[in-house]
Amino acid sequence: MAKKPAPNSTRRSERSRRAIYDAALALVGEVGYAKTTIEGIAARAGVGKQTIYRWWPSKADVLLEAFLDLSEQASEPAVKEGQEPFEFPDTGDLGADLKFVLRATVDELLDPRFEVPSRALAAEGVVNEQLGAVFVTKLLEPSLQLYVQRLRSAQDKGEVRHEIDPRIALELFVSPLAQRWLQRTGPISYEYVDTLVDYALHGLAPR
Amino acid sequence: MAKKPAPNSTRRSERSRRAIYDAALALVGEVGYAKTTIEGIAARAGVGKQTIYRWWPSKADVLLEAFLDLSEQASEPAVKEGQEPFEFPDTGDLGADLKFVLRATVDELLDPRFEVPSRALAAEGVVNEQLGAVFVTKLLEPSLQLYVQRLRSAQDKGEVRHEIDPRIALELFVSPLAQRWLQRTGPISYEYVDTLVDYALHGLAPR
Repeated sequence: MAKKPAPNSTRRSERSRRAIYDAALALVGEVGYAKTTIEGIAARAGVGKQTIYRWWPSKADVLLEAFLDLSEQASEPAVKEGQEPFEFPDTGDLGADLKFVLRATVDELLDPRFEVPSRALAAEGVVNEQLGAVFVTKLLEPSLQLYVQRLRSAQDKGEVRHEIDPRIALELFVSPLAQRWLQRTGPISYEYVDTLVDYALHGLAPR
Repeated sequence: MAKKPAPNSTRRSERSRRAIYDAALALVGEVGYAKTTIEGIAARAGVGKQTIYRWWPSKADVLLEAFLDLSEQASEPAVKEGQEPFEFPDTGDLGADLKFVLRATVDELLDPRFEVPSRALAAEGVVNEQLGAVFVTKLLEPSLQLYVQRLRSAQDKGEVRHEIDPRIALELFVSPLAQRWLQRTGPISYEYVDTLVDYALHGLAPR
């Protein structure tokens, strides 16, 4: 009986795909977004550029998927049996759940594999409105929507006031961390994100 | 009696200085930080490049001062008789004072004269650690310290809890606005910054 060709071919494709992701992330970190080309990614990955064009229409698309893949890898150790990746914990203690997720984000932001290409793309997104919009829509906003869901669940249980807009509320702890990382306006740590969550939940004014 | 040469010379210098600032801001907005050169600024300003080198050691220094000057111009209409520029209002109502300053920041962020060069420099600061540090230290942090002083004054009056760290607390309303502007993660408006202040002061949890 003849072997089916599919599994080998799939493994080969998977290897190429991974090599292309790695090459794309490495290149954008080294030379920046503007100087990263499909040709450069292909040469570094050891594939023909037609291989890349077969799967992705542009370098922005390659990089977007490379980032999605990197984020999935980063979240793998935290994924438990039967749990969806990126599932936001809901233990019934909002503060603890927010701190858990924000501490994991601190780990990711301080990981050089993630940091170098992320900075290059974030910088490009600031001046290149089209690229910025793609990354916000496909990469950042979906993860922010997990905070929205968790805050809504907290509203249902009376842990968060009903008149609060969750999409704005999440920015009280997510944006300070993002700005310290992006603009290096201060150190980031577990203690720092814990403090942000405490301030946001309980407010600056005396109770 | 011979005229003193100083006033004319000072006016000439002031005109050159202004032309150089305008040229530097226009260029960095058009071609980005990396491609902005002292030669390019000099040509656009109609001065010799030695004129620029006489006053500033590098393009980063020219741009830094051009920005300081732009911020001062922007704040001029709000400056009242006998009041220092950039003075933070202290009417005794912390929420109202924070909203007043943040609304003025919204106006500035939406002003194209400010927005285009700011984006170019912010993007460069994300990847260029040295430049980022200069702009944070000399431009951003001094304005954040005005929030720190205002929050300390509110702590003295019992409007803000004593255990709060003002340098972290200010990020609850400043950073969300910065991130929406920098990464275009959402619209910015007076209503938006008012909401941030209300959430930060009173907290997300029921009182």
